[in-house]
Amino acid sequence: MSIFGLIEYKDASPEVRAVYDDIMAARKTDSINNFWKAIAHDPATLKRTWEDIKQIMAPGALDPLTKELIYVAVSVTNQCPYCIASHTASAQKKGMTDAMFKELMSVVGMANETNKMVTGYQVEIDAQFKK
Amino acid sequence: MSIFGLIEYKDASPEVRAVYDDIMAARKTDSINNFWKAIAHDPATLKRTWEDIKQIMAPGALDPLTKELIYVAVSVTNQCPYCIASHTASAQKKGMTDAMFKELMSVVGMANETNKMVTGYQVEIDAQFKK
Amino acid sequence: MSIFGLIEYKDASPEVRAVYDDIMAARKTDSINNFWKAIAHDPATLKRTWEDIKQIMAPGALDPLTKELIYVAVSVTNQCPYCIASHTASAQKKGMTDAMFKELMSVVGMANETNKMVTGYQVEIDAQFKK
Amino acid sequence: MSIFGLIEYKDASPEVRAVYDDIMAARKTDSINNFWKAIAHDPATLKRTWEDIKQIMAPGALDPLTKELIYVAVSVTNQCPYCIASHTASAQKKGMTDAMFKELMSVVGMANETNKMVTGYQVEIDAQFKK
Amino acid sequence: MSIFGLIEYKDASPEVRAVYDDIMAARKTDSINNFWKAIAHDPATLKRTWEDIKQIMAPGALDPLTKELIYVAVSVTNQCPYCIASHTASAQKKGMTDAMFKELMSVVGMANETNKMVTGYQVEIDAQFKK
Amino acid sequence: MSIFGLIEYKDASPEVRAVYDDIMAARKTDSINNFWKAIAHDPATLKRTWEDIKQIMAPGALDPLTKELIYVAVSVTNQCPYCIASHTASAQKKGMTDAMFKELMSVVGMANETNKMVTGYQVEIDAQFKK
Repeated sequence: MSIFGLIEYKDASPEVRAVYDDIMAARKTDSINNFWKAIAHDPATLKRTWEDIKQIMAPGALDPLTKELIYVAVSVTNQCPYCIASHTASAQKKGMTDAMFKELMSVVGMANETNKMVTGYQVEIDAQFKK
Repeated sequence: MSIFGLIEYKDASPEVRAVYDDIMAARKTDSINNFWKAIAHDPATLKRTWEDIKQIMAPGALDPLTKELIYVAVSVTNQCPYCIASHTASAQKKGMTDAMFKELMSVVGMANETNKMVTGYQVEIDAQFKK
Repeated sequence: MSIFGLIEYKDASPEVRAVYDDIMAARKTDSINNFWKAIAHDPATLKRTWEDIKQIMAPGALDPLTKELIYVAVSVTNQCPYCIASHTASAQKKGMTDAMFKELMSVVGMANETNKMVTGYQVEIDAQFKK
Repeated sequence: MSIFGLIEYKDASPEVRAVYDDIMAARKTDSINNFWKAIAHDPATLKRTWEDIKQIMAPGALDPLTKELIYVAVSVTNQCPYCIASHTASAQKKGMTDAMFKELMSVVGMANETNKMVTGYQVEIDAQFKK
Repeated sequence: MSIFGLIEYKDASPEVRAVYDDIMAARKTDSINNFWKAIAHDPATLKRTWEDIKQIMAPGALDPLTKELIYVAVSVTNQCPYCIASHTASAQKKGMTDAMFKELMSVVGMANETNKMVTGYQVEIDAQFKK
Repeated sequence: MSIFGLIEYKDASPEVRAVYDDIMAARKTDSINNFWKAIAHDPATLKRTWEDIKQIMAPGALDPLTKELIYVAVSVTNQCPYCIASHTASAQKKGMTDAMFKELMSVVGMANETNKMVTGYQVEIDAQFKK
């Protein structure tokens, strides 16, 4: 299931349980994804990763759904099956409709296509876009 | 500037000019990016790529700005300097603020980090996420 | 199990057996990983790949464990499940502790995160780092 | 030089200066790399990224040089020129010799080669490596 | 089997059936791959993707087998198991022998190796190759 | 120009010169690319890499031009500017026409697009393609 196995809530240390509790409260759910149960074997990393995600995925200039769509776009580009499955589910929970998912996939596919073509043609950056 | 050079409007065939005209009309601009000028050496590809992008990036279930943010997210994950420069500029034109860009970068960075960690820990997809 | 199936020792040609024998001797084991059994269908590639790995992974300025950690880091970044599973096992055999693995994953995650951020922000290489 | 330009120490807010000071103290240097000056436009990200790196790259089960070699390995696999240049310099500062660098490159190259071959041959993970 | 399930011919709309018919006619087969059945939930994307592939993979300056070998090379480099399995089968159908497959894998492996080494060594493009 | 600089023929050791001579003879040219001059700082790697490439890129079941096209396809997918520039030049020298290059780019772009779409839609491998 994972290199060190998964740490369930009932078997978790108080330190790990505190993070699990915070994840469940923030996400309004009573289950914890396998990812967290896997990295719980490294409590410092569990805590750091969760704190980072909580800060980064919070509503801000971008709304939570948009952030989740971006997360899926990256996961698809990296071809990470776990990440695609879990973040697609998160996006759906945050309001992604089927129509949105389909458009998301088309944009991701197109971007991957043109990213390669522009590099293959050895195109120089337009003067007005240079930083 | 590109493997075959760049085809400027004044030197373009009627077939290529028709695409350039459509790009400039759709984007409300009077300039054409180097990418299009580079692939214009292959008019069928120029036309197909532009028609695809026009269809895919049009307003739909996702608004044009969200689509452009996704394009940038993919381009950053692929580490394509041309694509990042040009699509960041497009996103700004469509309303991306500096605050949005900063959050976009944080989400992209975070997603790339956890994509690798979950794969490295060999985490199995949660039963409820399997398709 | 693989595109052409796996060639077991008992079914192998003398040419392939010689490589298998050398792998088992070098690794002090009596089993051969599926990777070798798969590419054994191309004996020249089997031999070349093994000779290369033997030369590259030998103790040198870097010790064998450090080299194996680097192999895992690349495999995780490429999101290659087979490679992660087999090279993590090799690293453990060479002395990687659980604590080392956890730190390895954190470094790999962090590096992937900042690799993308620096490219996304379009940061120019510092003058003192240019070659 | 970067999308929003680089924030020099003299122009930085107290919040940003505090991070710069901590970076310079930790690294025993009086200069700040462009990466930090670029993301300083987002002080929360600057602080979070630095705190994460400081925690992750600290001596632990793996020594700082090994961690830096892993950072370079990821950066090369991602083909990120900025990251390669800056982390190669960091690794040299932490004791990487030319001989170590050469071996690092050979391992990274080899790992990238076999990662693809094993996937291309569609090799199934050996039973004993499955988690 | 896929996020929205697979649309079989008997359950398909006339619009989707028209594409399925064209795929089967073009490929001289009476079955449709799962990829098409999955994206058939987005008929516009199904149609656009098929029209693009039909145009791009048609005989031209490069013959269909060479194009399919290139497709496999990209799929292996992206480490996409579905794509490798399906396009390897397509290539075999178009005449790829076992010997060709083996050489293909060796070239792909080698290219991935040297791509990383040249970037890691920070090699500048030779003057005569610059565009 | 490269991390350790470039070793020119006149400054090379007999060991390195022997490889340079073999490269020039095999390629019917009197110049050596920067890549070789950069890794010549590690003569064992120079020799191993050249011997591997010579074996792999030799005419076989696939002709040299096809192999070079595959090399370019991988280099574009990896977005490696040096590799694209040098292997595109090699392919041209081996007979790649402009029309071939354009079709190559279209196939590479298309493959990158569908690789991501199939993964994003979480499509299961068709039963008949499983190994």
